[in-house]
Amino acid sequence: MSKVLVSGHRNPDTDSIASAISFAYLQQQLGVDAEAVALGTPNEETQFALDTFGFKAPRVIEKAGDETRQVMLVDHNEAQQSIPDIKDLEVLAVVDHHRIANFETAGPLFYRAEPVGCSNTIILKLFKENNVAIPKNVAGMMLSAIISDSLLFKSPTCTEEDIKAAKELAEIAEVNIQAYGLDMLKAGTNLSTKTELELVTMDAKSFPMGDKTVRVAQVNTVDIADVLTRQEKLEAVMAKENADNNFDVFVLVITNILDSDSVILVVGNHQEIVEKAFNVTLENHTALLKGVVSRKKQVVPQLTEAFK
Amino acid sequence: MSKVLVSGHRNPDTDSIASAISFAYLQQQLGVDAEAVALGTPNEETQFALDTFGFKAPRVIEKAGDETRQVMLVDHNEAQQSIPDIKDLEVLAVVDHHRIANFETAGPLFYRAEPVGCSNTIILKLFKENNVAIPKNVAGMMLSAIISDSLLFKSPTCTEEDIKAAKELAEIAEVNIQAYGLDMLKAGTNLSTKTELELVTMDAKSFPMGDKTVRVAQVNTVDIADVLTRQEKLEAVMAKENADNNFDVFVLVITNILDSDSVILVVGNHQEIVEKAFNVTLENHTALLKGVVSRKKQVVPQLTEAFK
Ligand SMILES: [Mn+2]
Ligand SMILES: [Mn+2]
Repeated sequence: MSKVLVSGHRNPDTDSIASAISFAYLQQQLGVDAEAVALGTPNEETQFALDTFGFKAPRVIEKAGDETRQVMLVDHNEAQQSIPDIKDLEVLAVVDHHRIANFETAGPLFYRAEPVGCSNTIILKLFKENNVAIPKNVAGMMLSAIISDSLLFKSPTCTEEDIKAAKELAEIAEVNIQAYGLDMLKAGTNLSTKTELELVTMDAKSFPMGDKTVRVAQVNTVDIADVLTRQEKLEAVMAKENADNNFDVFVLVITNILDSDSVILVVGNHQEIVEKAFNVTLENHTALLKGVVSRKKQVVPQLTEAFK
Repeated sequence: MSKVLVSGHRNPDTDSIASAISFAYLQQQLGVDAEAVALGTPNEETQFALDTFGFKAPRVIEKAGDETRQVMLVDHNEAQQSIPDIKDLEVLAVVDHHRIANFETAGPLFYRAEPVGCSNTIILKLFKENNVAIPKNVAGMMLSAIISDSLLFKSPTCTEEDIKAAKELAEIAEVNIQAYGLDMLKAGTNLSTKTELELVTMDAKSFPMGDKTVRVAQVNTVDIADVLTRQEKLEAVMAKENADNNFDVFVLVITNILDSDSVILVVGNHQEIVEKAFNVTLENHTALLKGVVSRKKQVVPQLTEAFK
């Protein structure tokens, strides 16, 4: 078998980076010439985790076809979130915890998805099933991913399995979950150094819904009002993103990680469909979504349904 | 949780029927109100297995939406092979060993695919992972599925895992694999009682390839020449099937289960692409494919590639 690249999604979050690292490590132990790569540089939260556990950021690739034909995807499956030349590659394996869409293979493959809160919760199972021990630093990254995806277990996507996995990994990594977790999440909320364009692209994903393309970005903060002082500039870059990329509508989810609410800022067409999706009325293009912290569980399915 | 229907693919083969039975049983033990159903009546091979192990054929459904919104799919994922109203249903889980295509969900789900020879090889793992014991008669159906999908371990789709699983299940079912297996396979080759339409539909699947739709049916026999005495009538019903269903081309794979070769009979457009796919020249619309027994591994990927 030739070299196999293991990649998470575009605009990688901590789970995507950590999954590439942990799943590539597992594959290496199983005899595969696997390399963790990424489709972008780590955000500040992820960099905090990488620094804590002594990893360099995975090599950033823009396509895979010039170095291999075989890839493994972690933490995503949809083509528009994946390696740009994915259609020309053979996907050997997928480990994911998202909906399946816009994904197609020519032959059978290994596909492991479970409705849990984090890809690394599944990868932990795969380590066990294959009787491979998890090194301390790899466990630290896997733990960071669960903390990130579950917002320290507060997200409705978080399951008992995720909590159990996090405790197990924290023991291997010798880390206090609460103390480390809050430090890591806070490292990701330092938005003042970011341009508006960075804010709306750093954790953004595109979703085909009906015949529309909906862009959904999320930023974590400890002060939503602080982010909204930049509303005018944010709307301008969102409108430009829509125009440049043919997004029909752009939904920015601004999430307070301390009180677990979000405000959405909506730019583009079909604002009435977005209102219907969340049963809210947009005022000045914004609406408070009480208790909403999960794009995957509390935003995308609602939008998908409304855009049907 | 409301009732959940567990279904294999249209034109069900032994693996599809057995997977519905075994996976529904597993789900029941896990507390799910699951019922095995089927998208057609069992073929003679499957009926032989059902009779041997004392099962009634699963109830045949034509849609699910009038009794439940939630389904689990086994042995397939592609919408055109699935429950006709699948787009309106929530897919909670998939266990499969085929390529993934034309499959999309609104939310996260349990998806377990592995590149092994039979869905029941994966389901056996799931029984173990959930610490659920397999009753003797369920094990018999699961064994029958592995024998069927692997043509008694002769198919190139058959892996070491399938063989190991079959041995384990044979022990639980208290069955001699070779003797039972040959009896069961032969029960499926009694083609004389079948109309030509039955022959080309009983194990037929549609595949979107590029912008074409390719129909691929397979019949098992112990005498290919015997089947080809009906070539003229077979071609007539295949042409009618193409016309009625907008198939661009129909490939009938006639497989000798004893010597593990196949002859293809091709009706419709793009015959030259089919020739290219297998690097053969069709004579009188037929060609011998030496050593070809697996639609999934030796027919569909080759056609998919050629139709790109
Ligand atoms: Mn994730
Ligand atoms: Mn099967």
